[in-house]
Amino acid sequence: MKIYFCGSIRGGRDLAHTYEHIIKMLQGFGTVLTEHVGSDEVIQKKDRVLSDRQIHDRDLGWIVESDLLVAEVTVPSLGVGYEIGRAIEIGKPVLCLYDAGSGKALSAMIAGSDKVEMKLYRQTEEIEGILEAFFKSHAPRRTS
Amino acid sequence: MKIYFCGSIRGGRDLAHTYEHIIKMLQGFGTVLTEHVGSDEVIQKKDRVLSDRQIHDRDLGWIVESDLLVAEVTVPSLGVGYEIGRAIEIGKPVLCLYDAGSGKALSAMIAGSDKVEMKLYRQTEEIEGILEAFFKSHAPRRTS
Repeated sequence: MKIYFCGSIRGGRDLAHTYEHIIKMLQGFGTVLTEHVGSDEVIQKKDRVLSDRQIHDRDLGWIVESDLLVAEVTVPSLGVGYEIGRAIEIGKPVLCLYDAGSGKALSAMIAGSDKVEMKLYRQTEEIEGILEAFFKSHAPRRTS
Repeated sequence: MKIYFCGSIRGGRDLAHTYEHIIKMLQGFGTVLTEHVGSDEVIQKKDRVLSDRQIHDRDLGWIVESDLLVAEVTVPSLGVGYEIGRAIEIGKPVLCLYDAGSGKALSAMIAGSDKVEMKLYRQTEEIEGILEAFFKSHAPRRTS
């Protein structure tokens, strides 16, 4: 199972620790292609050697390669919105996680999309159960 | 010519006056389907009567119907990113405008996409010339 995780990078790193926590949980379900999203240090290192075009093309390639996409959407981010939009058109299942206690307004384009599985949480402890249910419904089918 | 204009709504209204200004300029080139993006008053009125699903489906329908998309991408916004991502997959020409003096970081997914025509400005007066060049290159072909 290949997982594409999205979190805000240049839009703001307020939830970097939450991203790191989610990535660790996701690694229990498969390979997280975008592990760097949880680490400021890795992002800064890669930004120094990769152009925007290289970052875009690498990430888009990972979306195509992935089995599904999991996005933390509390911090407004152009990149996260873009990745969700492209993943939907490519036909990937998309789970969005939103901190309902954050006081931030969630985009109607995300909350209102019938191609997005939208889940609200108030404590990060709730995320594990949300992921379990999502991966259960999108597990690769086994031949009997 | 039908134009879909994108600007941040729930992500932050810091540039609402710039959006209003761009929409007025765009109306010189065709019909702006998303005229409400420039007006807090109209957005608040519509938000009271439309659900997120209705907003999403109306806006996605407009993207499909439009000839091209123009986005102001200075304020990070999930909705703007989502709209750009879906418009690209649908095959619409996309122009992105970014205030290079804003001090905000622009997403690599937008700046690095070869499907986006990315233009930087420092004064709103520069936008008119950018729009003229973009519409000139995307004008409907005339039969001779």
